[in-house]
Amino acid sequence: MIKVGIVGYGNIGRGVEVNIQENPDMELVAIFTRRDPATLKTKGTCPVLPVEEAKDWVGKIDLMFVAGGSATDLPEQTPKYAKMFNVIDTFDTHANIPEHFANVDKAAKEGGNIAIISCGWDPGMFSLARMYANAILPNGNDYTFWGKGVSQGHSDAIRRVEGVADARQYTIPVDDAIARVRAGENPELTTRQKHTRECFVVLKEGADPKQVEHDIVTMPNYFSDYDTTVHFISQEELDRDHSGIPHGGFVFRTGTTGADHENKHVIEYSLKLDSNPEFTTSVLMAFARAAVRMKEAGEVGCKTVFDIAPKYLLAMDEGEMRAHLL
Amino acid sequence: MIKVGIVGYGNIGRGVEVNIQENPDMELVAIFTRRDPATLKTKGTCPVLPVEEAKDWVGKIDLMFVAGGSATDLPEQTPKYAKMFNVIDTFDTHANIPEHFANVDKAAKEGGNIAIISCGWDPGMFSLARMYANAILPNGNDYTFWGKGVSQGHSDAIRRVEGVADARQYTIPVDDAIARVRAGENPELTTRQKHTRECFVVLKEGADPKQVEHDIVTMPNYFSDYDTTVHFISQEELDRDHSGIPHGGFVFRTGTTGADHENKHVIEYSLKLDSNPEFTTSVLMAFARAAVRMKEAGEVGCKTVFDIAPKYLLAMDEGEMRAHLL
Repeated sequence: MIKVGIVGYGNIGRGVEVNIQENPDMELVAIFTRRDPATLKTKGTCPVLPVEEAKDWVGKIDLMFVAGGSATDLPEQTPKYAKMFNVIDTFDTHANIPEHFANVDKAAKEGGNIAIISCGWDPGMFSLARMYANAILPNGNDYTFWGKGVSQGHSDAIRRVEGVADARQYTIPVDDAIARVRAGENPELTTRQKHTRECFVVLKEGADPKQVEHDIVTMPNYFSDYDTTVHFISQEELDRDHSGIPHGGFVFRTGTTGADHENKHVIEYSLKLDSNPEFTTSVLMAFARAAVRMKEAGEVGCKTVFDIAPKYLLAMDEGEMRAHLL
Repeated sequence: MIKVGIVGYGNIGRGVEVNIQENPDMELVAIFTRRDPATLKTKGTCPVLPVEEAKDWVGKIDLMFVAGGSATDLPEQTPKYAKMFNVIDTFDTHANIPEHFANVDKAAKEGGNIAIISCGWDPGMFSLARMYANAILPNGNDYTFWGKGVSQGHSDAIRRVEGVADARQYTIPVDDAIARVRAGENPELTTRQKHTRECFVVLKEGADPKQVEHDIVTMPNYFSDYDTTVHFISQEELDRDHSGIPHGGFVFRTGTTGADHENKHVIEYSLKLDSNPEFTTSVLMAFARAAVRMKEAGEVGCKTVFDIAPKYLLAMDEGEMRAHLL
């Protein structure tokens, strides 16, 4: 039985708590929080403890899910806990991955632990799709589309617009662009040609919808490079129709082989997810299992999805895998 | 530079010869054949040698592609060459994989080599898609569809029917079945509901088309469980319109998460290939690179795609991978 803990009780923390039932080889033994544990409403009966007590669980926890934000939490937390436990995080600030890797690697080696960073579906499964496809088709092009799904960052950006009470933003891949890629056309696609953005906005009383729409669609970085649609709805409608957190996307590599590159090939990996955080957590749990097994196999240090042999992910005997999954 | 050799000059052997240009870290140094080397028309300038001379190349070849048939060639050849070289094969007789693995593992360990078996796209990339998806969604269902593509086995079966001069058979996945799986319906699908079979047949002079069609569509194992369409065409039409070897397929896993399994997720991996053998070879070449690197890392024995960390596949520095592909 793999004993796991959680630091931070947000979407990922809740996801682990819910998904543990699908992984009978794992047991959730403690949730650690920076908040007052008494104020935390969890779904199960797992003890909730202050983060300061985590150090007392060394030897009693096989892996810690470090479930903080990439901006400020994980750069500090993941190295800290990697000294004590095998850990896994979802660090997704792409530009800072090399630095984060170096810091976590040093800490994990000091602790004699395995630390997996930047796990989930992107980075994570989409990265793997890109890696395998690039290795197979050296002569080709990569395309990634996201959605249809809720972008938390874009929803937050809309909420900061004056006159907006609440908002939900969907990133939507353009069907025609996907169709062209899937057909092996190797199109050059601009930002605008790949995705559209659809916003559901609740106005504050007295706000001017024309002004709010203008402020959203012209917002640099977030919306100005896209075709953006804004719908004004009531808070009741937002809560009723847009409370889910779906997401997904497509990773393509198209390439050629043959003496004259005459043969086209299309590799496609796609996800359609009702719950982004629960799926992300599902990926984390498989790689958490891998971390514990790699530690048992004598490995230490920081790892990414690229470093992990697939056999470590599944709770199945290797002979069974070859007989039934190969 | 990775020096590779080929035993057997069929589709795979020709594929390696063509694809080597996409892999500048590899060099094809020798082709070994059981035929008279003088009779072999190759595409390039690589020396063609009798198989008996392979043993003289130990130390001069980093990896040997063992490119024979699964029925009788590979069970004998792969262990034989694994004693001398790192090797890779496409063994695809599913029921015999455990036995083949054991034999090759013993030989590879004797030789101190890495041997990768059952590589390609199915088994191979489709196996990996199943493995990752099963690890992520323990509560779910697997679906595999093949095609649209040429089935060599079914084409051969038609050619054995009395009155048939030549034939080409396409396996075609049923669109509606794929749509239902993609929608997360978790349908139970019979053999007939998943694939149809389309046959292009050239009759011998005087053959009775009604009888030939009857003999094809009622053939046990190959056609009787499918909706099969038979088209009679001329040899010229067959050669002109059906000389390609396209293939592909879809691997799905659909599953649920959530306290009450209320959230559905769909993972899809698909391939659309103009040339089945050239794509298969492309996969082999990436895993051939991995075999050589694993040997350099001190590993020995028989491996499958499940045992191989993705980082070994790509000719790229690990820091670059994390910076650009993660």
